[in-house]
Amino acid sequence: MTKLLVIGAVTAGTSAAAKARRVDSKLEIKLLAESQYISYGSCGLPYFIGGAIAAKEKLLARSIENFAQQGIEVKNLCKATEINLSKQKVIFRNLAQNSIFEEFYDKLIIATGARPIIFDWPGTAKKGIFTLRTINDGVDIKEYLRLNKPGQVLIVGAGYIGLEMAENLSALGFQVTLVERGSQVAPSMDPDMALIIQEHLEQKGIKVLVNQEIKGFEGGETVAAAFTGSGVVPADFVLVSIGVRPNSELATDAGIKLGVGRAIEVNSQMETNIDGVYSAGDCATTTNLVTGEDVYIPMGTTANKQGRVAGENAAGGNAAFKGVLGTGIARVFDLEISRTGMTEKECREKGFKFISHTVKSRTAALPGYSGDVWIKIIVDEKTRRILGGQIAGYSGAGKRIDIIATAITLGARLEDIFDADLAYSPPFSPVWDPVLVALNQFR
Amino acid sequence: MTKLLVIGAVTAGTSAAAKARRVDSKLEIKLLAESQYISYGSCGLPYFIGGAIAAKEKLLARSIENFAQQGIEVKNLCKATEINLSKQKVIFRNLAQNSIFEEFYDKLIIATGARPIIFDWPGTAKKGIFTLRTINDGVDIKEYLRLNKPGQVLIVGAGYIGLEMAENLSALGFQVTLVERGSQVAPSMDPDMALIIQEHLEQKGIKVLVNQEIKGFEGGETVAAAFTGSGVVPADFVLVSIGVRPNSELATDAGIKLGVGRAIEVNSQMETNIDGVYSAGDCATTTNLVTGEDVYIPMGTTANKQGRVAGENAAGGNAAFKGVLGTGIARVFDLEISRTGMTEKECREKGFKFISHTVKSRTAALPGYSGDVWIKIIVDEKTRRILGGQIAGYSGAGKRIDIIATAITLGARLEDIFDADLAYSPPFSPVWDPVLVALNQFR
Repeated sequence: MTKLLVIGAVTAGTSAAAKARRVDSKLEIKLLAESQYISYGSCGLPYFIGGAIAAKEKLLARSIENFAQQGIEVKNLCKATEINLSKQKVIFRNLAQNSIFEEFYDKLIIATGARPIIFDWPGTAKKGIFTLRTINDGVDIKEYLRLNKPGQVLIVGAGYIGLEMAENLSALGFQVTLVERGSQVAPSMDPDMALIIQEHLEQKGIKVLVNQEIKGFEGGETVAAAFTGSGVVPADFVLVSIGVRPNSELATDAGIKLGVGRAIEVNSQMETNIDGVYSAGDCATTTNLVTGEDVYIPMGTTANKQGRVAGENAAGGNAAFKGVLGTGIARVFDLEISRTGMTEKECREKGFKFISHTVKSRTAALPGYSGDVWIKIIVDEKTRRILGGQIAGYSGAGKRIDIIATAITLGARLEDIFDADLAYSPPFSPVWDPVLVALNQFR
Repeated sequence: MTKLLVIGAVTAGTSAAAKARRVDSKLEIKLLAESQYISYGSCGLPYFIGGAIAAKEKLLARSIENFAQQGIEVKNLCKATEINLSKQKVIFRNLAQNSIFEEFYDKLIIATGARPIIFDWPGTAKKGIFTLRTINDGVDIKEYLRLNKPGQVLIVGAGYIGLEMAENLSALGFQVTLVERGSQVAPSMDPDMALIIQEHLEQKGIKVLVNQEIKGFEGGETVAAAFTGSGVVPADFVLVSIGVRPNSELATDAGIKLGVGRAIEVNSQMETNIDGVYSAGDCATTTNLVTGEDVYIPMGTTANKQGRVAGENAAGGNAAFKGVLGTGIARVFDLEISRTGMTEKECREKGFKFISHTVKSRTAALPGYSGDVWIKIIVDEKTRRILGGQIAGYSGAGKRIDIIATAITLGARLEDIFDADLAYSPPFSPVWDPVLVALNQFR
């Protein structure tokens, strides 16, 4: 019987195992997880901490028993310590029993995910300094906040997680300061859009400090303040959310090739450079659909899709995952922000000649349903192909990015969709949808 | 000086005049309107009656003075009575002064719109029986409801207007019955989706009667009941919303060719069969982008787009309007319903071999933001090109139709967008957007 071994059981790993089972009902499938928790959505963690998601169990999709019913054996609290490619086996440590065991495989899927970046700043080991990635992180933070009721909360890093946590921590009644090393919040968007977001954060009482790098933390056993280049920020709770790094050491130690961002390099079949070894999710590379280049953009959506492809192919199928646009969305208090494709910054880096327009419009015609929305569209100057879009706005603004993502996916030039027949009625849109208003700036 | 004459000043006519002015600052432009009101959004009328739009002035986009500032002369309360093509003039009756005058033109745009269909049922002339199309209709209905406080309200016809009025009249506290001649509500959608809508209407206290044709009305001076094929429906207020007919008599009397639905036949340049004479909006035909056939689907969005093209071309430009997908959306109490492209019914009529899937999913992952959503996708069996989509669901469901409309516009096959990188975070979507869930049923 062919044995499929999957390392990692959060998103990509569980998708892979489930898909492999659907493709081949006879495959022996084992899914090994380092955490006690498997199959969960870490994107929900800010809302678990904020309270909108009431219990950690709500974050869990499928249980060990669910997988057992599908004939997938799950072992949790087992940490992979070595991949032996020549012997087609993986060495694990059982964390509960502190014992070592090995699992042989015919096909291997590496879905080890990523871990939060945290620098070794002076004082980083103090109590009250957290990162947020796993359910355990979420539980720990929630418990810490409950017990310690911090007066001043500091979030380091103004990406999606930092922005979402600013809202959720503020909703819990904490005074929040957001520190960002770069020159703007929302680093995956352009500065003009970032300013709209920063203004909204400030209106909501968040203190935003950009261009400020953390140098260290002070306090006793517990953190009391952070040093930045330009001063001291009082903080008795710190969340560091400055991005993630792929968990790729296991792979590279075994001789599996890494690619961009030190992620495991995969092709569109999710194959690594080693026959029979696949990788998927936040530990793996993917392709930017606009540039065609390998990129490392870890996202839950991508992990799901890559996992399915890896699972199908490991089970003998022939699926492919074409790539991503780096589409992202977040709610920041009342503001919805989203982006897809290339920003101006990225276009410049990649040498695209582009034109761009930003337009302010409304999300609907009916009072009470309508809010301001800013939409930016970036277009290739020569081909007039749409390269990217960014949105910031209220009540129904954010998901309009999907129109632009769909257009880019299908290679749309402006002329192809100037007159697209988008849906209109007063509670949902002005007669010209704001996306069309933005596109029509290029006429 | 070249003279552009535009007949009709609601949507297409005003768009045309404004665009013509932007294209040619020297053109003499006259815009003649039958009503005292110009440049308004009739799609807002149900919400004006319901009260969400507080005053009729909120429905008005641009005033006569606004147009005057652009050098566009507007004459309202002037009804066109004859187009003389050989002499390039139009005869008008000034309704205020009851006098006749004529206007000569070099270029003519006919944007006479449409009027509600109402049959000559016995008793149709009784007080309390209305159609809803113009601001005057809206004002009359609102005043009638205020003064007469009807006990039983009857809506005849369960299209978009009928459904929106069911919500708005119910919100005003009236007991609403909805009668539809056909076998389902929402005739532009398939029966399976219509059942979801009907169930929601009934949950909200609307009495829905399908397969029931109005035979006449009884009462004294004022309506008291309607007869249907199968009984008597008490009603002291009746709204007839069974569709519209193009105001094309003026054109056909002059010798201008009509097309499908007796609408004025235009090509993609909005040209009629007569040189220098254009038509746009609810009086004109358009093209179905899926079948390539001429269709009559009067919509405010289309009127805007066609008006711009007519205005640009009448001013010497060379614009084109490709056509429509019949995209529509409506709020029906808490339910959002939308459709684009071909339904199964339409596919059968047109001889398309299709496959279709309907899926039930969720609109978001975060409690309080998520509702059920049903999405139906229809695909050409052979080419796997997407032909149509239909949505019914809660909180954020409806505008997802734009993803499908964009895909159809760009000629997408299923395989092109199975893995589209749509935006995900818990307040906005499950990790697989429901549109992707629906598409993936075809794998």
